[in-house]
Amino acid sequence: MRRSRHVPVSLVGAGPGDPELLTLGALRRLQEADVVVHDALVSAEILALCASGTRRIDAGKRAGRRGPSQEWINALLVSEARAGRRVVRLKGGDPFLFGRGGEEALALTRAGILWEVVPGVSSALAVPASAGIPLTHRGVSSSVAVVPGQLAAGAEAVDWAALNAVQTLVVLMAGSRVAAISTALLEGGRPASCPVAIVQRGTLAGQKTRLSTLGALARHGDRERVATPALLVVGEVVRLAEELGGWREALVERARPDARTA
Amino acid sequence: MRRSRHVPVSLVGAGPGDPELLTLGALRRLQEADVVVHDALVSAEILALCASGTRRIDAGKRAGRRGPSQEWINALLVSEARAGRRVVRLKGGDPFLFGRGGEEALALTRAGILWEVVPGVSSALAVPASAGIPLTHRGVSSSVAVVPGQLAAGAEAVDWAALNAVQTLVVLMAGSRVAAISTALLEGGRPASCPVAIVQRGTLAGQKTRLSTLGALARHGDRERVATPALLVVGEVVRLAEELGGWREALVERARPDARTA
Repeated sequence: MRRSRHVPVSLVGAGPGDPELLTLGALRRLQEADVVVHDALVSAEILALCASGTRRIDAGKRAGRRGPSQEWINALLVSEARAGRRVVRLKGGDPFLFGRGGEEALALTRAGILWEVVPGVSSALAVPASAGIPLTHRGVSSSVAVVPGQLAAGAEAVDWAALNAVQTLVVLMAGSRVAAISTALLEGGRPASCPVAIVQRGTLAGQKTRLSTLGALARHGDRERVATPALLVVGEVVRLAEELGGWREALVERARPDARTA
Repeated sequence: MRRSRHVPVSLVGAGPGDPELLTLGALRRLQEADVVVHDALVSAEILALCASGTRRIDAGKRAGRRGPSQEWINALLVSEARAGRRVVRLKGGDPFLFGRGGEEALALTRAGILWEVVPGVSSALAVPASAGIPLTHRGVSSSVAVVPGQLAAGAEAVDWAALNAVQTLVVLMAGSRVAAISTALLEGGRPASCPVAIVQRGTLAGQKTRLSTLGALARHGDRERVATPALLVVGEVVRLAEELGGWREALVERARPDARTA
């Protein structure tokens, strides 16, 4: 199993789920891996791209049960690499943006194991795009912040009021906290009329976008039934979804066998 | 040249330059395109992946000369699509993050032309990763903002002081403005000791990272010789580069023919 000069551990971003958004570098590493340690956000279609003999280890958290600890995952990567195996640590999105890739890179470095990072397409960009929302737009927004809606244990608290200085705000994993986040942003000074998009199951089958405002979500957000994963986009760029938000549906409509040809 | 049911215009992210960071979807569209309209940031290696008969149109701005106007590019996309050609608009990074893809999507929508967006790996993520800097890290940073160092005409001004609320700050196209940006961030209340990485030619051959502090760059930043493209990372996560920043060099070193095998 030992091959010369392979990179022992690759920290690889799998993108938001659609295999078309996997990078060429990620695909090559999946095909060459002996072991793939993946999280819960990595889609079955992407795991199917591994070579047939590849061992796959699910290190993801699932709703209702704890996944393995970060320390366990770090130790697994070290021990597999020391056994001479070519290890891919595969994460949804990008390993270094809310992917905890930095912790794994530190553990590997301290164990004297060579590693590399293969960045991926972040859901923070791909999901708004799938809803027709550019994060920046001339005359509308030239600054973007990305924050988590729910914080991992040990993470810094988000200063929601201060984030109002940034024109476009992307909130990942916002599912159950839509009303609380909207209230915090209002208290920080964003207007009640500020547009918000809730993008559910972004880039996946069954994607749904709901356009609202901070004021409405602060009042009624608790009653929203939000399918996860869900992401919020807050800011004036959200208005562009009124014109651009239908692009995926337009393509699906045209592809139907009974669609009239232009 | 007219094919049935093709998507007339694809707005495609090419990633930061390395063909390994191109997505599978981007590659497929390049290979199927009749016309590729690309900007100056798209690398020659990536353009070489087009099919041999593909017409390539350089719509990029180069140092010292103006490129075509956005209005000219919009009109080109519309007219090529109306002629029945399969058009790829190829941008460095991601089309909807400082890529002006929103303007092109609006022009196409208003002309009644179907389009799609294929997100790419943003330089805002890939370049810090190549320098060993995770944008988020447990206990260090859970918020990231991305802003341009130089603003296009008509863009909103960046409120540098207010951005201090965000833990990690990525400044794109910072080249000639390192001292001015550092001064503005200091005036906004970030400490002089706040670490900053200047990543030059990130992910490309000849990549160079310089680690400094806001205080030092505000005083001496004007004397820095900064090779473009250059990106700044500001915040405590930059300290991780002291341990993680050497990962690319370590792989290159090991791959040398005279390197000792472990």
